[in-house]
Formats: sequence, structure tokens, C-alpha cells
Amino acid sequence: MATIPSLGEAIVHRINQLATISETPEHLTRVFLTPELRAAADLLLGWMREAGMSAHLDAIGNVCGRYEGDKPDLPCLMLGSHYDTVRDAGKWDGPLGVITAIACVAELNRRGKRLPFAVEVIGFADEEGVRFASTLLGSRAVAGTFDDRVLEARDKAGISMREAMQAFGLDPQQIGTAARARGELLAYLELHIEQGPVLEQNNLPVGVVTAISGATRLAVKLTGMAGHAGTVPMAMRRDALAGAAECIAVIEEACRADQAGLVGTVGVIDARPGATNVIPGEASFSIDMRAPTDLDRKEAVAGVVQRIEAIAKRRGLALQLDVTHENRTAPCAPWLQAQIASAVAAEGLKPCELPSGAGHDGMAMIDIADVGMIFVRCRGGISHHPDEHVEPADVDAGARVLLRLIENFRPKAQI
Amino acid sequence: MATIPSLGEAIVHRINQLATISETPEHLTRVFLTPELRAAADLLLGWMREAGMSAHLDAIGNVCGRYEGDKPDLPCLMLGSHYDTVRDAGKWDGPLGVITAIACVAELNRRGKRLPFAVEVIGFADEEGVRFASTLLGSRAVAGTFDDRVLEARDKAGISMREAMQAFGLDPQQIGTAARARGELLAYLELHIEQGPVLEQNNLPVGVVTAISGATRLAVKLTGMAGHAGTVPMAMRRDALAGAAECIAVIEEACRADQAGLVGTVGVIDARPGATNVIPGEASFSIDMRAPTDLDRKEAVAGVVQRIEAIAKRRGLALQLDVTHENRTAPCAPWLQAQIASAVAAEGLKPCELPSGAGHDGMAMIDIADVGMIFVRCRGGISHHPDEHVEPADVDAGARVLLRLIENFRPKAQI
Repeated sequence: MATIPSLGEAIVHRINQLATISETPEHLTRVFLTPELRAAADLLLGWMREAGMSAHLDAIGNVCGRYEGDKPDLPCLMLGSHYDTVRDAGKWDGPLGVITAIACVAELNRRGKRLPFAVEVIGFADEEGVRFASTLLGSRAVAGTFDDRVLEARDKAGISMREAMQAFGLDPQQIGTAARARGELLAYLELHIEQGPVLEQNNLPVGVVTAISGATRLAVKLTGMAGHAGTVPMAMRRDALAGAAECIAVIEEACRADQAGLVGTVGVIDARPGATNVIPGEASFSIDMRAPTDLDRKEAVAGVVQRIEAIAKRRGLALQLDVTHENRTAPCAPWLQAQIASAVAAEGLKPCELPSGAGHDGMAMIDIADVGMIFVRCRGGISHHPDEHVEPADVDAGARVLLRLIENFRPKAQI
Repeated sequence: MATIPSLGEAIVHRINQLATISETPEHLTRVFLTPELRAAADLLLGWMREAGMSAHLDAIGNVCGRYEGDKPDLPCLMLGSHYDTVRDAGKWDGPLGVITAIACVAELNRRGKRLPFAVEVIGFADEEGVRFASTLLGSRAVAGTFDDRVLEARDKAGISMREAMQAFGLDPQQIGTAARARGELLAYLELHIEQGPVLEQNNLPVGVVTAISGATRLAVKLTGMAGHAGTVPMAMRRDALAGAAECIAVIEEACRADQAGLVGTVGVIDARPGATNVIPGEASFSIDMRAPTDLDRKEAVAGVVQRIEAIAKRRGLALQLDVTHENRTAPCAPWLQAQIASAVAAEGLKPCELPSGAGHDGMAMIDIADVGMIFVRCRGGISHHPDEHVEPADVDAGARVLLRLIENFRPKAQI
């Protein structure tokens, strides 16, 4: 197919064009319900129409395009990702999936090809949750699980989501109309950059996602006894930081021993009073644990908690341990994984299976559809950073896989 | 000796009286070259004269009293401690040694007893180093090792030590006149609260100090690779905080294994970027290691550094390691330890030997005299805090030991 390389080029061109729409010219920042999000929506809606789709902005600001099947009103294969960004973002996280999906539909349209199902493309208006500290607002509205209480959340400038919607030209009362019914979707498929180093390590441009890992976050505080660093013999100490260090080692060891995608991270640590010559009386740290299955994650968290309790007890430290966040796993449907793997193999590539440790809109969409995801390699696994980069050849590879997948898609009922 | 209990009571009374002289009435704070330090000096000078001593303020603000021996101009046994405090201090750290020494001389004077040597009492004006970030300024002046560059150091209000001295009524040009010659001192003896929990643990009111431990402080920075807490598999991580945790465990283990007074503390830690869902790319921490001999300390530091280097190498972390501070050990003279132990035993107490992990004026005085130290138990080992407390019975015990020591003191040449 001689057209495909130019399809890849066109995608990169549009990625660059969309990236010019930002809160500030120096850094790419495009958050929910802002004028720049509106400008980006208009650009995307234009591209959708150009690709032969009917297109509209839905009640929460998602861009929605529909390419009819070989007869009207067929259920759709929905392709999507998000078009909002974090602050000082890379240009690929989100837009690559939306723009690639539009490009695939444009290619079908160019060939005049209609399928026995509709193809819809959706660009979610808020996945990152930067503005109102609540993620997946766009996909939750579509899944019918939007929590109205978020309307009262306020951004740093004190503006509520309700007020921001009105300023954007949307009616908060109408959010419910963005919801789709399970019967309307044959599946939800998302192409996204990996945001990790696994594909690069395996020298592969694309991968088949097995699950969007669930996550548990904990806040741990150990309290011992502060004391003079010179005068308290080692055997008489209740050093909270030494206890925390042992906990960090235990978390790392437990996750390293697992071979099924379990990861555990201590990203935040604080020791008090925090002076060179004072034994820390208090140490606080965060734990973030993720696994591709909820069972594995829950077992791993329970094991780590048990070991932390034992460390605290042995060291005479008081322990406070709170679960601050918990997200269930969104497993990718095996039948969709199989079709993605076939498309990957048909492109002459090895289908590499990997979990997604980062969150994606599929976590919300799973409430109304089976979910599948294609990962595209990104340089160094770097994301949420201006250095985020995808090689044009990998954009091509991702687009070829997605187009082949759409063309060969068979709904679950027909397998 | 029926008089001794009342000697103890008198000391506690004066401790309380001196503690009323403070920068603010709520918190005890008395730092170098302030009006409150001057008021405290005047009170101490008055008590010295009352005890039968000639007394004067020396060129750096130390209070100096002299009780002549059985003939004029004899070399002296010098007893001392400091009368400055940290901020929000306890009332015992420093003043207990000065006031107890004055009380012992007063008792000799009451009895009309002269000794074959003079007894001098010195209250150092700056041991804590709160104001000009340089410790032992009083005792360094007496030892002739005062560093003139400190005169240019400025406090938080921007006042230099030179300016502060002038405002206090002292001439910075004259600091050299505070220096004493080695031949003038038979020994330097200091009574001080332990500031640690060892005597309390051993159920003893006093202890014999073996050495003022030297200290090495290091600043360590490990640099790995930041990454998404969900997307980077454990085996591909270069987590700087996990590396730091392993280093902390190694420091604790090395010091615990030592049975000769080695202590090691990590009091400060920082992980960056410091977000729950980001693998730390950078971790910094402090190390404070102390031991009663320089050889033990240096060997222990070298061993820990070697193990940290190995950890960094194995984990692929860049290591920056700087020695930020180094203090040699000031060993207490064995002949003085023996005389202190005899005095303790004569009071019916077990002579408990222990190192001082905290710094004291003996670290400077050792340049012109052999040094001995008596520790008095303090509650819970707590110091540099308003909760610092010494039981009156322990004040008694310390005073009895010190008085007996003075009365039975034999200079080294006469042993």
C-alpha cells in the first residue's frame, strides 16, 4: 500500500499543527474548557469532516466524528483518545490516537470503502484532570458515569467546572446527553504512546496492551523518637527514617520478585525534624503499587502492608497507614487483543504484549464497551515532558496496524 | 557532709534564676554578644565573687573567676562550661557546669580551705554557635585558636561579629588577650548533662566521659532516572530513592555491628521530583558518623563510603559524595578519667564510662590542657528542648563528685 507512508507523514504534520494551540507559546499546555481547547476542538472537527465524517462537539466538549457503515444507524467501532494535555506537555500523549484514527477513516473514505459497522472517532476533552483534579471527565461523561459533584470543583483561579462550562458555551445540565448506550458500541479501541520503555527495550514500534493496570496509593507515617545524632547509642534508637528505608527496600524487593507486571514506587519521602545532627522522629512516604490484575495488586499490597507492620513493630515505631487512592484494573478484552495481535503480525511485526501502567480513557469506557489498546513506542519512555517523541516510522507502523485492524474488525458476536 | 544537699538545692535555685535571663520570656534563648548574655555574665560574676573568687569578663565575653591556692600565682585546675544557649533551649545545658563549679568553690571558701593549686571557673560565652554559625568561640579564644575570619561572619540581622563585639563593649583587637598558656592549667574539667539516654538506662546519676567523639558529616546525592511509576518495569528502573534507602540500611547496619560507641545517622533526606506517581530520579541525604576514636570513625566512614559506591555502581546511579564537616576526637586524659572514677566510687556510685557524642568546649581546650568530663543524667536524654530536665538529687550527686574531685585532685606530674 503505497499510500501508507504518506498517511504517517500527514499524521506527524497534524500533531505539530495541533501542538501550536496552547495556553502559552513556549510550553504546550491545553487544559479542559479553555479557549485553546475550543480552538483545538474546531481543528479536529474540521479534520473529521474532511475525512468524510459527520462531526460535533458533545455536551462535555468531546469531539465526536462518525463515519457511517454500509447502511445507516449501525453500531460503531469507536476509536479514541484525548486532546487535552498536562502542563508543559509533550505533543503525542492523546493527540496521536485521535489524529491517527481520523487519518485511518480518511483513508477508508478516500477509497470509498464502507464497512458492515460504523466507525466513530472521539477526542476526549479531559483525560489528564489538570484543571479540576479529577481525571477521565470526558470518557466518564460518555460512559454515563460522570460524577456531578465535580461541577463544583474549582480550578486554581477559583472558577468552578460549572462556571467554566458555561463560559465555554456548554450547559452543565446537559452532560447526561453525552452518555452512550452499551448497544451502540461494538468495542472501544485506543492507540496511545506507551509512556514507558518496554517497546524501545524490545526494539518494536508497537505493542498489544493486556490491561490498564489498577493502582493503589498509600500514605505511610512512621513515628519513633527524635534524638541527638551523637548521644543516642544505636541500640537505643527508634529512628523513623531507618524504618522507612527498610520499608522502601521491602516494596522494591516484593515488586522485583513478581514477574507479572507488578510495580511499586516510593516517590515522596519526608523525615522530621530534618536536621543533619538529629535522629528523625518521624518519616512519611507515599507508596504507589500497580498490577495488571486486581487480585495480584491486592495480594501484593496486603503483603507489603504486613511487612511494614512487622518492621514498625520490631523497631518500636508507631505506624499510620492510609489508602489514599484505589483504581481497579481495566483488562483489555482477549478477543480484541487477538485481533490487534493479528493486525500487528500481518504488518510483519512481533506482537509484544504489555500492561499499561498509566491510566487511560479505557478505564472509564470499560463500563459500556470491551476495550482494546495499541501502544506506540516513544523515545526513552519519556512522557509528560516536552522531550516526548515518537519516530515518524513508528507513527506509520501504528497507523498501518490500526487501519488493518479496522478493515479486518469482526465484532465479538461474529467470532 | 550535711552541707551537700543544700549545695545541690542552691545550684537548682541558681539554674532557675539564670534561666529567667532570655531574649524572650516564653522561650529560653541566650546567644552570643547580646544584652541578655551580658546580664547573665553579670549575675555569674557576682556569684563568683560571692564564692571568694576574683572575677572578670575576658576579651571575648567569657566569665572568669579565680580562687587562689595556698600561695599566689599557682597553676590552676580549670572548671568550666558555657552560659550561652540554643534557641528555645533547656536551662541545664552549659549553666549546670558553671554553677556547680562556682558552688564547689563557694563550699571550699566557706570552709576556708585552700589547695596546693588555684581553682578557676570559666563560663564560655559561645559554645553553641547559634549566632555566627561557628561553635566553641569562647573556648577557642582561651585556647588561642580563635579564627579571626569569624569576626566578619554576620548574624541573621546582618550584624557582623566584629560589630556585635563593639556593641557589647569589647574590642575585637583584644581577643588574643583571652588566650591562656599551657603552663597555667593543670587540667580542664567540665561537668555537663549527658544529653543522651545512657545513664538513665543504666540507672546512674553520673558518668565518666572517655572521649568527646569526633564527627564526620557527608552530603550524598544519587542520580538515576525519573520515570512514570506505572510504566517502567522494576528491572528497568534506576530509582535514586530506592538506592538511598539501601545506603541508609547499610549505615545503620555498620554502626549497629560496632560495639565501641560508633553511631551513624541520616537526618535529612530529599527525593526529586517528589511526586507519588513518579520514580525519583534524584535522592539526596546527609550522613553524620561519630566514634570515640578517630581511627574507628575514619575506618567506619571509609567502609560506608565503599559500600555506598558499590550500591550506586550496581544500580547504575551517579554518585556525588562530599565531606561537609570533620571534627577530630578529643580523648579525655586517662589520668583524669581515673581521678573522676575514684571520686564517683567514693560517693558510692558505679563509675560508668561513656563517650560524649555531642561536642563540648573540651574539644577546643584540649589544645592547651588535658581534658576530663563528668556527665550528669538528664531525663529521657532530652536536650536542646524546653523539656530538658535534671533531677535535684542528680545535681547533688554531680556536685558531690566534683567537690570530691577538686579536693583530691593531684596534678599529672604528682601521680
